[in-house]
Amino acid sequence: MRKLHVVFPVILGLSVLAVNAHAATRDTPSRSAIIKASKPSEWHTLDPANTLYMDLSKGRVVIELAPTWAPQHVANLKTLVREHYFDGTSVYRVVDDFVVQWGDPKAGKPGARSMGKAKKTLPPEFVRHVNGSLPFVKLDSPDAFAPEVGFSGDFPVGRDPANHTAWIAHCYGTVGVSRDVAPDSGNSNTLYAVIGNARRIDRNLAVVGRVVRGMPLLSSLPRGPRDNMGVYHDLKRATPIRRVRLASDLPKDKRVPLEIMRTDSASFRRLVHAMAHRHDAFYKTSPGHIGLCAVVPPVRLIPKTQRKRSPSPTSKH
Amino acid sequence: MRKLHVVFPVILGLSVLAVNAHAATRDTPSRSAIIKASKPSEWHTLDPANTLYMDLSKGRVVIELAPTWAPQHVANLKTLVREHYFDGTSVYRVVDDFVVQWGDPKAGKPGARSMGKAKKTLPPEFVRHVNGSLPFVKLDSPDAFAPEVGFSGDFPVGRDPANHTAWIAHCYGTVGVSRDVAPDSGNSNTLYAVIGNARRIDRNLAVVGRVVRGMPLLSSLPRGPRDNMGVYHDLKRATPIRRVRLASDLPKDKRVPLEIMRTDSASFRRLVHAMAHRHDAFYKTSPGHIGLCAVVPPVRLIPKTQRKRSPSPTSKH
Repeated sequence: MRKLHVVFPVILGLSVLAVNAHAATRDTPSRSAIIKASKPSEWHTLDPANTLYMDLSKGRVVIELAPTWAPQHVANLKTLVREHYFDGTSVYRVVDDFVVQWGDPKAGKPGARSMGKAKKTLPPEFVRHVNGSLPFVKLDSPDAFAPEVGFSGDFPVGRDPANHTAWIAHCYGTVGVSRDVAPDSGNSNTLYAVIGNARRIDRNLAVVGRVVRGMPLLSSLPRGPRDNMGVYHDLKRATPIRRVRLASDLPKDKRVPLEIMRTDSASFRRLVHAMAHRHDAFYKTSPGHIGLCAVVPPVRLIPKTQRKRSPSPTSKH
Repeated sequence: MRKLHVVFPVILGLSVLAVNAHAATRDTPSRSAIIKASKPSEWHTLDPANTLYMDLSKGRVVIELAPTWAPQHVANLKTLVREHYFDGTSVYRVVDDFVVQWGDPKAGKPGARSMGKAKKTLPPEFVRHVNGSLPFVKLDSPDAFAPEVGFSGDFPVGRDPANHTAWIAHCYGTVGVSRDVAPDSGNSNTLYAVIGNARRIDRNLAVVGRVVRGMPLLSSLPRGPRDNMGVYHDLKRATPIRRVRLASDLPKDKRVPLEIMRTDSASFRRLVHAMAHRHDAFYKTSPGHIGLCAVVPPVRLIPKTQRKRSPSPTSKH
């Protein structure tokens, strides 16, 4: 297949230049080369107590939760998950170039399923206060939506030094809590994931995490009608959700052994630099910067030889 | 259905606040309100000689060509279209959060279909020289990938005053020409459309236009395998392309009567301002800026009472 990639008139992806025999050693390293050269200590495993598995008929969506960013929304979400609230609900809204949304289509209306012990309203947790313990790997890139951008733990974030706030940015895969007009009306019974340009809603909704595996299961769903804000007129078109579970509530051998490259590692810095300053046989022009949402921290199955390690502290951020 | 939108815990879209009875008059106007208040002269029709219809089994994708940005690539593409080169080809590559790609999967290999009178190689047309006749409506937003951004005619563009170049940005819906490693290896027989974060390839490929209608037909296609750069292993999974035609080669009554809001109009300025400074019952925090790719010039079917007008000059840009 390698030959195919070079002969084919394709847009060369980030990985293909690793197989390009013509690439001189001074070329910018590829994403796969940087990952290959990284050390085991530059990765951390997901914290099972803050990892959700959402099982659809076609596969599993893995969501890393962000408890320090929206603690009450995440806690309420865990309560709902443990009550099996989402089992049998569906992905019923798909807005092209924006978001997919899931939960009980009847939520807030007659016939809605019970939320059990979960709270019905929660205080807005749209931004958080920046304190000394908040990790922040600054990205040296101009951004339209935030005075400063970078990574905090595994999440792409915006930061405003003027008022000491920070927030998870609505990049591809970001998971947030839908709400009504009232800022306290979100309660985690209805969630969305970003599939397109959605930064314009930054700081106006509570973000509870990020899809780290399985986005294609959501991004390729049929779009809902514009005249109904993307909600399928016929809910039979909605994609059933078999079940949602916390990884820590499953036996260890049923969990997905994933690890994420630490954003405070040298390899991640190298990746960001390579994307911003890319020069090689294919890419001749580089802007010297890279957009926040264009940088996705690498995620992979933990190499089998290393599956004994426990989560590192950064997984809590 | 209106009630549903307000009661539902949804992420309120750009249009819903028009139906929110609580919205005070000082609220930022919604996209639909701005469109409704616009004048007919603030829109222009598509130039049929620079509009492609790509017909899939599920519907039509409409592409506005950009002849002043990549004249030779657009001319070669028109030659191929008039030879019916694309009829019976397919969309055979779908890379999540990046691009979909179409054409003859065998292009450049044994068994490829004939390109007829079209050229096999073309000079790179990745950027263009900025001269006095190039329209540019500057967007006052920081951008990671370009020193300046804005709109030129109907296209989102980057501009570099230092070297007097400009280029169409790889925003959602941008259509470009795939190529091999050699910069002159693109010839318009293989095209791609942006479905995700793709600005990082700006200035490295020739852009020939933008999808102005029908993106959901492409963006919701099943993703191809990562280990094959998104190219389906089994080409039976590829989406057949029935035919591609220039609108001007179809009888007038078979064309799609579309018009686009002029980016040099007062209504478009109002739309940009409203997106950057949004404040209303739902949105409490606004960055004061809006990202280039977040602003999509409105496209609509021409109101029936106005279908006599001819294309305005800006459609040539």
